[in-house]
Amino acid sequence: MMSKPTILITNDDGIEADGLLVLAHAMKEVGQVFVVAPRTEQSAVSYMVTIRDPLRFFNWDLGEGITACALTGTPADCIKFGVGTWLGRKPDLVVSGINQGPNTAVNLLHSGTVGGAIEGCVEGIPSVAFSLDSFDKHADYTTAGKVAQKVAHQVLNLGLPDGIMLNVNIPYMPEKDLKGFRIARQARSRWDEAFTERKDPIGRPYYWLAGYHINLDQGPDTDLAVVEAGYVSVTPLQLDRTDYAFARTMQEWTW
Amino acid sequence: MMSKPTILITNDDGIEADGLLVLAHAMKEVGQVFVVAPRTEQSAVSYMVTIRDPLRFFNWDLGEGITACALTGTPADCIKFGVGTWLGRKPDLVVSGINQGPNTAVNLLHSGTVGGAIEGCVEGIPSVAFSLDSFDKHADYTTAGKVAQKVAHQVLNLGLPDGIMLNVNIPYMPEKDLKGFRIARQARSRWDEAFTERKDPIGRPYYWLAGYHINLDQGPDTDLAVVEAGYVSVTPLQLDRTDYAFARTMQEWTW
Repeated sequence: MMSKPTILITNDDGIEADGLLVLAHAMKEVGQVFVVAPRTEQSAVSYMVTIRDPLRFFNWDLGEGITACALTGTPADCIKFGVGTWLGRKPDLVVSGINQGPNTAVNLLHSGTVGGAIEGCVEGIPSVAFSLDSFDKHADYTTAGKVAQKVAHQVLNLGLPDGIMLNVNIPYMPEKDLKGFRIARQARSRWDEAFTERKDPIGRPYYWLAGYHINLDQGPDTDLAVVEAGYVSVTPLQLDRTDYAFARTMQEWTW
Repeated sequence: MMSKPTILITNDDGIEADGLLVLAHAMKEVGQVFVVAPRTEQSAVSYMVTIRDPLRFFNWDLGEGITACALTGTPADCIKFGVGTWLGRKPDLVVSGINQGPNTAVNLLHSGTVGGAIEGCVEGIPSVAFSLDSFDKHADYTTAGKVAQKVAHQVLNLGLPDGIMLNVNIPYMPEKDLKGFRIARQARSRWDEAFTERKDPIGRPYYWLAGYHINLDQGPDTDLAVVEAGYVSVTPLQLDRTDYAFARTMQEWTW
């Protein structure tokens, strides 16, 4: 009998998030589950690692069949700690999420959830980030958990090439209304932002980041578009950010 | 007479770093200079943005001909603040650095210096990250400053396509020993890491990230290799992380 695959889980909403709990219980049907998640919310920390402060560790109870701990760091820290120190070996799969809110377009560059999966990928482990297209703190992650099971089975069966991870975004709807899966590309988008100035009780100014997301990309094959159309978007992301086409153009530049 | 281009500068070593000062003074010969840098060191914060805390702002004196301020945020926050609120308009160029230490291979994914340039690129501004191949706090940035001038002139003259920024790494040597410029790709590398456990004065454990960098890529055309060989490496980086080749392969997957 084959032994169950080892699955290491993190997220960026923190150890107490609903999406993490649903993902951990969904993965119990796929393999042996280990969770190492940030002690507090780490949204928008991207692929940050903590190098100026030490980290604290807490054992955590997430229910039967799940070995879990929390770390006072980022998702990338959690995967580094999980693989290098806590497990002390490479798992068969890293999954990150299920994030509260989509990580499509430029938002996937900021995402701590994606950052956790990037670290798994850097370490040579098949890795997937999962996000739900709802910012509701009390959203129902049931459908997303089933989607995550399906994707985890695919990746364990088919593998991923070195240096490529998957970014999965799941529409917020009952399973029966989902239209299926689409391989999608990252949309080009940006935020239009100005900072809001406020005054503290002693009159000194402080600034809050505030703005709105602008889609600059009307393609029907983007992550934004397919989720909007009711499909699970699956985007393979590469660690190598070199733009090879423009690198060839730049060979003509004289210095 | 053409007006001087507006240049917005940030870094991740913070407003007090030598590399920032050298870059700001080097850019004075290229355009009108505005600096908005993190109040404290923000190494390895990647493309993080601060969404759970407000930011504080400080006017700063970096010398004649330089308008400067510090912000209690990340490099990406600084560019968002600089463009959206402080300048209130798009500059002609964003430059980030000069970083203390190289941002080659996987390190460019963690880099806050690169994160600042990513934000410029997302906002549709030609953007360049500069890093010096020396971790010496008292390194001489003179050569790197001259390289930055040359690259800034090139980019202002030739432009960059939408969604592509440049990542420039400079060998640590006198200008006369530099072999020239090479267009290079991002090397594939990882860190081998375990966390070091220590005990605080009341006996509770805490963990420091510790490890060493492993180059997994022996190509002569990587950023790591060309800097090692004495060339300035120039790598065009794309915002779009979609792996299109593997996306085509994945079209065959059945769900």
